[in-house]
Amino acid sequence: MTTYQRPLRMGMVGGGRDAFIGAVHRKAAALDGEIVLVAGALSSTPEKSVESGRDLGLDPDRCYPDWETMLEAERNRPEADRIDFVSVVTPNHMHYPVARAFVEAGFHVVCDKPMTLTTEEAESLADLVAERGVVFCVTYNYSGYPMVKQARHLVRTGAIGDIRKVVVEYNQGWLATDLESTGQKQADWRTDPDRSGAGGAIGDIGSHAEQLVSDVTGLEIESLLSDLTSFVDGRRLDDDANVLLRFRGGARGVLVASQVCVGALNDLRIRVWGTRGGLNWHQEDPDRLLVTSLEGPEVVYQRGGAGLCDAAMQACRLPAGHPEAFIEAFANVYLAAVRAIRDGAACDYPDVHQGRRGMQFISAVVRSSEAGGQWVSM
Amino acid sequence: MTTYQRPLRMGMVGGGRDAFIGAVHRKAAALDGEIVLVAGALSSTPEKSVESGRDLGLDPDRCYPDWETMLEAERNRPEADRIDFVSVVTPNHMHYPVARAFVEAGFHVVCDKPMTLTTEEAESLADLVAERGVVFCVTYNYSGYPMVKQARHLVRTGAIGDIRKVVVEYNQGWLATDLESTGQKQADWRTDPDRSGAGGAIGDIGSHAEQLVSDVTGLEIESLLSDLTSFVDGRRLDDDANVLLRFRGGARGVLVASQVCVGALNDLRIRVWGTRGGLNWHQEDPDRLLVTSLEGPEVVYQRGGAGLCDAAMQACRLPAGHPEAFIEAFANVYLAAVRAIRDGAACDYPDVHQGRRGMQFISAVVRSSEAGGQWVSM
Amino acid sequence: MTTYQRPLRMGMVGGGRDAFIGAVHRKAAALDGEIVLVAGALSSTPEKSVESGRDLGLDPDRCYPDWETMLEAERNRPEADRIDFVSVVTPNHMHYPVARAFVEAGFHVVCDKPMTLTTEEAESLADLVAERGVVFCVTYNYSGYPMVKQARHLVRTGAIGDIRKVVVEYNQGWLATDLESTGQKQADWRTDPDRSGAGGAIGDIGSHAEQLVSDVTGLEIESLLSDLTSFVDGRRLDDDANVLLRFRGGARGVLVASQVCVGALNDLRIRVWGTRGGLNWHQEDPDRLLVTSLEGPEVVYQRGGAGLCDAAMQACRLPAGHPEAFIEAFANVYLAAVRAIRDGAACDYPDVHQGRRGMQFISAVVRSSEAGGQWVSM
Amino acid sequence: MTTYQRPLRMGMVGGGRDAFIGAVHRKAAALDGEIVLVAGALSSTPEKSVESGRDLGLDPDRCYPDWETMLEAERNRPEADRIDFVSVVTPNHMHYPVARAFVEAGFHVVCDKPMTLTTEEAESLADLVAERGVVFCVTYNYSGYPMVKQARHLVRTGAIGDIRKVVVEYNQGWLATDLESTGQKQADWRTDPDRSGAGGAIGDIGSHAEQLVSDVTGLEIESLLSDLTSFVDGRRLDDDANVLLRFRGGARGVLVASQVCVGALNDLRIRVWGTRGGLNWHQEDPDRLLVTSLEGPEVVYQRGGAGLCDAAMQACRLPAGHPEAFIEAFANVYLAAVRAIRDGAACDYPDVHQGRRGMQFISAVVRSSEAGGQWVSM
Repeated sequence: MTTYQRPLRMGMVGGGRDAFIGAVHRKAAALDGEIVLVAGALSSTPEKSVESGRDLGLDPDRCYPDWETMLEAERNRPEADRIDFVSVVTPNHMHYPVARAFVEAGFHVVCDKPMTLTTEEAESLADLVAERGVVFCVTYNYSGYPMVKQARHLVRTGAIGDIRKVVVEYNQGWLATDLESTGQKQADWRTDPDRSGAGGAIGDIGSHAEQLVSDVTGLEIESLLSDLTSFVDGRRLDDDANVLLRFRGGARGVLVASQVCVGALNDLRIRVWGTRGGLNWHQEDPDRLLVTSLEGPEVVYQRGGAGLCDAAMQACRLPAGHPEAFIEAFANVYLAAVRAIRDGAACDYPDVHQGRRGMQFISAVVRSSEAGGQWVSM
Repeated sequence: MTTYQRPLRMGMVGGGRDAFIGAVHRKAAALDGEIVLVAGALSSTPEKSVESGRDLGLDPDRCYPDWETMLEAERNRPEADRIDFVSVVTPNHMHYPVARAFVEAGFHVVCDKPMTLTTEEAESLADLVAERGVVFCVTYNYSGYPMVKQARHLVRTGAIGDIRKVVVEYNQGWLATDLESTGQKQADWRTDPDRSGAGGAIGDIGSHAEQLVSDVTGLEIESLLSDLTSFVDGRRLDDDANVLLRFRGGARGVLVASQVCVGALNDLRIRVWGTRGGLNWHQEDPDRLLVTSLEGPEVVYQRGGAGLCDAAMQACRLPAGHPEAFIEAFANVYLAAVRAIRDGAACDYPDVHQGRRGMQFISAVVRSSEAGGQWVSM
Repeated sequence: MTTYQRPLRMGMVGGGRDAFIGAVHRKAAALDGEIVLVAGALSSTPEKSVESGRDLGLDPDRCYPDWETMLEAERNRPEADRIDFVSVVTPNHMHYPVARAFVEAGFHVVCDKPMTLTTEEAESLADLVAERGVVFCVTYNYSGYPMVKQARHLVRTGAIGDIRKVVVEYNQGWLATDLESTGQKQADWRTDPDRSGAGGAIGDIGSHAEQLVSDVTGLEIESLLSDLTSFVDGRRLDDDANVLLRFRGGARGVLVASQVCVGALNDLRIRVWGTRGGLNWHQEDPDRLLVTSLEGPEVVYQRGGAGLCDAAMQACRLPAGHPEAFIEAFANVYLAAVRAIRDGAACDYPDVHQGRRGMQFISAVVRSSEAGGQWVSM
Repeated sequence: MTTYQRPLRMGMVGGGRDAFIGAVHRKAAALDGEIVLVAGALSSTPEKSVESGRDLGLDPDRCYPDWETMLEAERNRPEADRIDFVSVVTPNHMHYPVARAFVEAGFHVVCDKPMTLTTEEAESLADLVAERGVVFCVTYNYSGYPMVKQARHLVRTGAIGDIRKVVVEYNQGWLATDLESTGQKQADWRTDPDRSGAGGAIGDIGSHAEQLVSDVTGLEIESLLSDLTSFVDGRRLDDDANVLLRFRGGARGVLVASQVCVGALNDLRIRVWGTRGGLNWHQEDPDRLLVTSLEGPEVVYQRGGAGLCDAAMQACRLPAGHPEAFIEAFANVYLAAVRAIRDGAACDYPDVHQGRRGMQFISAVVRSSEAGGQWVSM
C-alpha cells in the first residue's frame, strides 16, 4: 500500500489557446492525481497568456503574462506553495531560454522535444543541469509505452541476441499539402526554421524515432547518411527524411520519417532483429509486441498480460484487453519525472543527455543531406 | 473558446484498497480537469474506508467510515463546498441502497453497472430518479468510445439501411479457473449471487454487450433464448452465456458472453448488418470502425480522422493515429454526466432507463436458461 | 524420393459452362499433377454438356451428353483407360442419383457438399458405400487447410485441455439482395428447395461450419436449437441461421451462418476454448493459427513454419510466408482421396459418414426452426 | 465462352530432385490446364536429371541427361510435338547459357530471376531476344498478384496523384544462421558468387522488390546509394541490404532487403505515396490493398471484390474471400506468357527488358556499397 504523497505543483510555459500539445501534457499530468497545475505563462502574447490561465481555472495571481514574470514570482513564493517544476511546451525555439532560466533558478524541468534549437544550446543546457542537479525530463513520450519498456527488456536480457538490424519508421500525412499557408498554427511554426530548428520532419518526428531506437536497443549511432526532401513547394524545411544508420558494433539501420505520406496518421513503428530473434512494435497498436525467435512460432505479448517485465507491468494501469494508449504513455513519462523529483534518485525517464543526443542526431542528419547525402559521424 | 467552469466535486462510495474499478473511475474523472474527488466512503470496512481516503490525500474530514456517514455529513455541508455528485463503485449489491439514498437526498449519481441486484430495485430506482429530477448516469463505459458514437450515427442516418442481423460478443478468460477459491477479491464477489446478482458473466459483461447493441442499433429486444453454463466446478453463477435475440421489427441477433475463454482478454466486439451495409467494431482496437456497403470496398473510419459525425469528433481528445483507449472512453461518460449536471439538459450519457433495461435483460436471460432454454419475452 | 505413380483419371459430372465450383474442382485436381480429367458430363443440357467438354479439350468421345451415358460408356472402356473416379459437382439435388449410380458400378466418388438432398438419401448412400467398399470423398474443402489440421492436432493432443466452448461462424453477403430474381445461376438453384434441399444458408455454408467443428474438435452435437430467417422478400429458404449447440460431454457452442451480411466475403471462422487454452482460425487468413494458453502470451503458428504437426506439414507445398490458399486446400482434399484410391487405406479425407452427419445436422436445424426454435436431438 | 486451345508444351531445365522452385513452377504451370510439361533436363547431374524426369512421369525419351541434349532433340522433333517453350529454373549462373541457346534456336523462354549472372549477359540476351522475336518471360512472380495489378492501375490512373515516396521491403529470416555450412542446397548456391552472382539478398529478393516498385509505380531509378552487409561469419555475399533511391522526376525511395531478419517469412511489402493518396500492399496478405486519400477514410480493396480494374479482375480465379495466393500469382505470370506465345501480341508479363533492368539494379547496388556507400547512377 502506497503512503500518500502530496501531488507536485506544476507550472506550464506555452500550451495556451490554439496550442495542441499543451492540453495533452495537462491531461497526462492530471491522469494519476500526482500532479496539479497551479501556474502558467501559457502564451507568448501576454493578454492571451493570462486569459489561457483563466480558461483553466488557475488562481488569477498565477496566470502570468510571460514566463519571466512567472519565474520571478514563483521563486519568490514560499517553498510550501511554489511550483515544484515547470513544464515547457512552447514551440522549439523557446525551449532553451525558458528551460535554462528555470534550471538556473533551481527548478526541475519537463521539456518538450526536440530539446533545443541547436546542438550548442543542448550542450550548454546539459552542462547546466549537471551543475545544478535538477531533474530535467524530455518528453519523448513514446518511451512511456509499457510495451516499449518490454521491448527494451527483451533486448537487454538477450532474448533476441546481438542486434544486427533496426528499421524504424515514423510516417504522417498531415503536411502533404501546403497547410502552413492556411494559417494552421501547428504547421506554421513547425515549417519555420527560426522556431522549429534545422530539421522539419526529421526534427519533429524523426527525433522520436531516433530516441525510440536508442531506448529499445541501447545502440549508439556511429555514422549516418541522409536524404532529406521538401516535397511541398515553398516549404523551407524537410518534410521527408530517409536515413541509413551504422551503429557502433556493426549493426545497421534504416530510419524513415515523413509528413507527406497521405493517409498515414501517427505511424511510428520499430523492428529490431538480432542473432536469435526479432521485435516488432507499432505505436498505433501499442498494447501488443510481436516477438520472433529462431526456434518457435511468433509470440504476441500484451500490455498487462503474461510474461511482462517489472518495468512494463509497473507502467500499466489496466489489465490486458482494456487498452491504454497515448495519454497513458505520456503520463508514464510524467510519473517517472515525479518519482525522480521526489526521490532524487535515478529514474526511468528521458533525460537531458537523451535530449542532447537528439539534437546531435538532427544536426548530423541535416549536415549529411546538405552535403548531398554523405556519411557523417555522430 | 470555452469559458472556465469550476470542476464538479465528486464523492465516491467503494473503490478503496484492493478494489479494481474504483481507480479507473478516478483516473477517468481526473483526466479532463472537470471533476475533483473531495470525499469518500471507499470501503465497507470502516477503518479501511478511512485509510483508503487518506491514501488518496482526501481531507481527513471527508474520509468517511461508511456511506451513511458520508451522506449525512455532505448534505450538511454548505452548498458551495458539498459534493456535486456521488460515484458508486461498490460490488453490485450495494448499488441500490447507496444510489437510492443519495438520489433521495437530491444528489446526482454516477453508478456502476449492472445498476442494481434485481429488476424490482431497478424499477424503483428509475421511478425515484424521475421524481427527484437528478442526473443518474450508469457507467456503461464502452458507449463512451468515439467510434461507438460513429457506429450509432451511421445506423441512425441510414448508412447501413434497415438492420437485419446483430452479432455481439464479449469474451474474457480470467475466470477459466477456480479463481474465487484463491481469495482473489474480484472473482470472489463476482461469482457470489448475493453480491453480484442472478447473472454471472451475463451480468458482469453480458450487460455491457446488451447496452452496446441497444446504443448502436436503437433496436429493442422482443424475445430471447439463452443457454447459460457454469463450467468451473462449484461456481454458483454462469461463466458462459449464449443468447439468441429477436428484435422488434424482425431483426435477429446473437449475444455471446463468456469468462472462461482462455486467452481472451476483454474481447467485446459488435457487428451489425443491414440491408445496405455493415459495421464492425472491436473494443481492443477501439479507434477503428470497419464499414461495408453493397456497392464498394470496405472503408476504415479512424477516431479523429475523416468522415466522423459531430458526436464522435467531440469525444476525441487527440488526432487520429494518437490512440485513445479505455480510460478516455470512460472519461467521456463522466464528461457527459458533468454536462448534464451543469446544464440540466438532455445529454448523451447512459441513464437510469438503460440501467433498468439492463436489469430486465439479465433477468430474462436467467429465466430463459432456468427454463431449459426457452424463448422469453422482454 | 517418391516413385512415380500415374495420375488418376477423373470424370466429372456438372461444372460446365456458367458453373462456378466445377472450375475450382478442376484447378484443385490439376495442381499437383496427380489427377487428369479425361471425361465429363458437364451439364444437364446435353448439347451444353458436350460443348463444355470440348471447351476443356476432352477427347470428343468422352464429352458425354449426360451422366448416364458417361457411366455406361466408361464402365465399358478397358480398365487401363477407364476413369478411376468421378467428381460430382452438380447442384445438390443431383448428388444422390449420380453418386449412387457410380458407386453401384464400383467407381470411387468425390462429391460436393451437402452430400444429398435428404437424410434418407444420405443413409442409403452411406450403406451402399460400405457395401461396395469404394472411396467416397465429400469435398468439405476447408478441412484441407494445413492450419485446420494443426488445430485438430492441438485439440487431439490436449494442448487446450477439455473443450468447453466453440464459436463457429460463416458469414457471406452475396445474397443480401434478391439476386435469384436476376437470373444469376448460383443464386437461382441455391435458393430453390427442390435443387438445394431444406436448408438455404444453413445447407450451403452452415454445413461447412458444422464439419469444421467436428473435424477440429471431435465433438458430437447432442442437441441444438436454431433460429432461421429469410430476410430477402420472397426467398424460399433461410438466408440467415443462428444455432445453439450442446455437445456430448457438456461443451457448448454457437454456430452462425448467413448470406445477407453485406460486405462479408467468405468469412468462416472457428474459435475453440478448452480448460487450458484456445484456438482461433479464420479462412480469409488461412495460413495463421492463433493459440492461447493459461500461462503465457498468445502464439501464432504459421503454415509451413515452426511447431507444426506432420499432417499439417504434409499439407504444405510452400515455405511459410509464401501463402497458400483456397485452391491448395481444396487440392489437399483431392490428394487425400487419390491416396485412398491408390492405397485402399484409411486416409485423412471427409468421408460418406461425415456427409451423412452433415445432412442430419441440416435436417435437425430446419426441424428446430420450424418448431419455433426448440431444442432437438441429433 | 472461350474456344478451346491446346495446352502449350513445356520443357524444363533445372528443378529436379532437391530443388525448391522447380516444383512451384510446375504447379503454377499446371493449375489452369493451359500448359503441359513434356520434357526436362532437370538436373546438372545427368543421371539425376533423367531420374527426376521419370519421377514426374515424363516420356522416357524426353527425360534428358542435360539441356544441350534436350535442345538438340526437341528442335529435331516434328513441330506438332516439339516443346513450345522452355522454363529455365536452374541456379542463376546457368540462366544465361541455357536461355541464350534456346532463344537462338527460336524457342520461347520462361526464365527465373535474376535473369543472368552479369549485366553484360543481360544486355546480350536482350539483344538476342529482340533479334529472334521470341517471347521471353522473367518470373517476377509477385507481379502476377491481382492486387499488384490493381495498385499499378490506381497509380497509372492518377488515384494517388504524383508519386513522392516509395518504401519497399523484402525481409526473410531463413539465412540468419550459417545454413550454407549444413549442406542445405538452397543456401549453398545462393551464397556462392559463382552461382548466384554479385548480389546475395539484394539479388535473390532485392531484385523482386526493385521490379515491384517499377511495375507498380512506373518510376525509373535515377541514382541509388546502398549499404550491404554480410552478417553471418564467412558468408561471401550480402545477406542484408539498405538502399536509398532517387527516381527521375524527384520521387524518393527506400528499399530494404534482408535474409537475416529472424522470424520474417516472405515479408515483401510496398507502400507508395503521392500528392493525393497512398497505397499499401503486403505479399503475406495478398488479397487486400489499402488505399488512402487526402479526403476520406482508408479504403480496403479485396481481390475479386468491388472496384477492381479489368487487369486485376482477369487475374482472379475465385470470388473475394476465397483467398488466392502465391501459386495462383505465379500461374498468372505463366498465363500471360502463354497468351503472348499464342497471340504473338504484347501481353502483360515481365519481359527481358525488366530482367535486364534488374541486373543493372543489382550491379549498381553492389557498386555503391563497394564504394563505401556512394551515390551511383543507373
